[in-house]
Amino acid sequence: MTIVTAQMSVSLDGFYAGPKHTDMPTWLEGPEAAGFFRVTRWAIAAEAWRQRLGFTGGEENTNSQVIAETYQAAGAYVMGRRMADGGEIPWGDDPPFRAPVFVVTSRPRETLARNGGTSFTYVTTGIESAIEQARAAANGRNVAIAGGGTLLRQVIKLGLLDELELHIVPVILGDGMRLLSSELGLGSREGIELTPARVIAAPDVTHIRYQVSGRHPLVLDNRGRDEEPATT
Amino acid sequence: MTIVTAQMSVSLDGFYAGPKHTDMPTWLEGPEAAGFFRVTRWAIAAEAWRQRLGFTGGEENTNSQVIAETYQAAGAYVMGRRMADGGEIPWGDDPPFRAPVFVVTSRPRETLARNGGTSFTYVTTGIESAIEQARAAANGRNVAIAGGGTLLRQVIKLGLLDELELHIVPVILGDGMRLLSSELGLGSREGIELTPARVIAAPDVTHIRYQVSGRHPLVLDNRGRDEEPATT
Repeated sequence: MTIVTAQMSVSLDGFYAGPKHTDMPTWLEGPEAAGFFRVTRWAIAAEAWRQRLGFTGGEENTNSQVIAETYQAAGAYVMGRRMADGGEIPWGDDPPFRAPVFVVTSRPRETLARNGGTSFTYVTTGIESAIEQARAAANGRNVAIAGGGTLLRQVIKLGLLDELELHIVPVILGDGMRLLSSELGLGSREGIELTPARVIAAPDVTHIRYQVSGRHPLVLDNRGRDEEPATT
Repeated sequence: MTIVTAQMSVSLDGFYAGPKHTDMPTWLEGPEAAGFFRVTRWAIAAEAWRQRLGFTGGEENTNSQVIAETYQAAGAYVMGRRMADGGEIPWGDDPPFRAPVFVVTSRPRETLARNGGTSFTYVTTGIESAIEQARAAANGRNVAIAGGGTLLRQVIKLGLLDELELHIVPVILGDGMRLLSSELGLGSREGIELTPARVIAAPDVTHIRYQVSGRHPLVLDNRGRDEEPATT
């Protein structure tokens, strides 16, 4: 059965990159990159990631297995426009996806075919439409929200995500770009409930896969006392 | 060997309580309590917590073992003044600590002796002094920072915490009181590095114990390419 999944590397305080900045000559010189490099380093060190990106070496460890499985489970991708634009040149002729990618954008553009099964289809009719097109193309495998964080947050907000895997990296960054931000638009007595479906403890990162149950009211309880339940 | 430890229940987005508010007649009616109740519910349901608080029942499960171990490992506590004030009446004559508690406060007060080994000593000479007094009283067991979040964050900021156990509850709250906030005062190219020392996956909460390594610079890397290392 096709489900909608996503995975993201985050610091212990929930950042997938350092703070955005506009006063640096290049992205690499700014704090956004410094944070992003730190939280994704476990993946860069893994054989499965390097193999997909065309690099040699890397460790064949638990982290590498997690990455290999993640790539294999995805039959199609949905991606934000900024991520697609930013990757177009570095990914080159053989992008790591090896599956159809549907890019959510406001700018119409012809589908871009690449080697190895990757194609980029530009969808101007919104996130839900992109997910539906990806679902049709996924051939029974999963639709993976490839990112970035802004798109993924919107997918969560819209209640369209079935499974979220967080790679929790043991570092506190203090500031940066946050996936689970107040922009999720939750009410003050409302939470998005999840269920941990798989926890893998590697030495340098903890992989937790959650099933997303959706929005539920936050309720009070009697704190262990043998009384009638409190009313909210 | 005595180390300085802390543990806290947090939502997946890092909140230990809902947002602070001032316009509610009672704390229980506000969103702060709603979030706090949700993230601590796994503990309230556990036998070991109920037993310490003088309540009956509860589940004898993995969560209960984690709580029992946490209580047993602590030889003395350090606590913020607001938490101590708030607990004084509900904890009553038999508080759950059963060990000396050192309260960081600016208001001098005589030591308060309670049953079961608990005492409250009011320390007006600062956090480091309170930790030193707790260390001397801990009898070889650990000094546990009991909370609240503001005190714990200060202890992390000062580099005084050796071990942090987070009980990560699978709920997204969207807003609230955050332990790991920008008030940690980290530089834009600096992170606090940790090492996961123990991961326990329960159905309703993931317990991750981290050893705290301290502040380190964030550095760039070559993203898997076989080149000379990039300079920062």
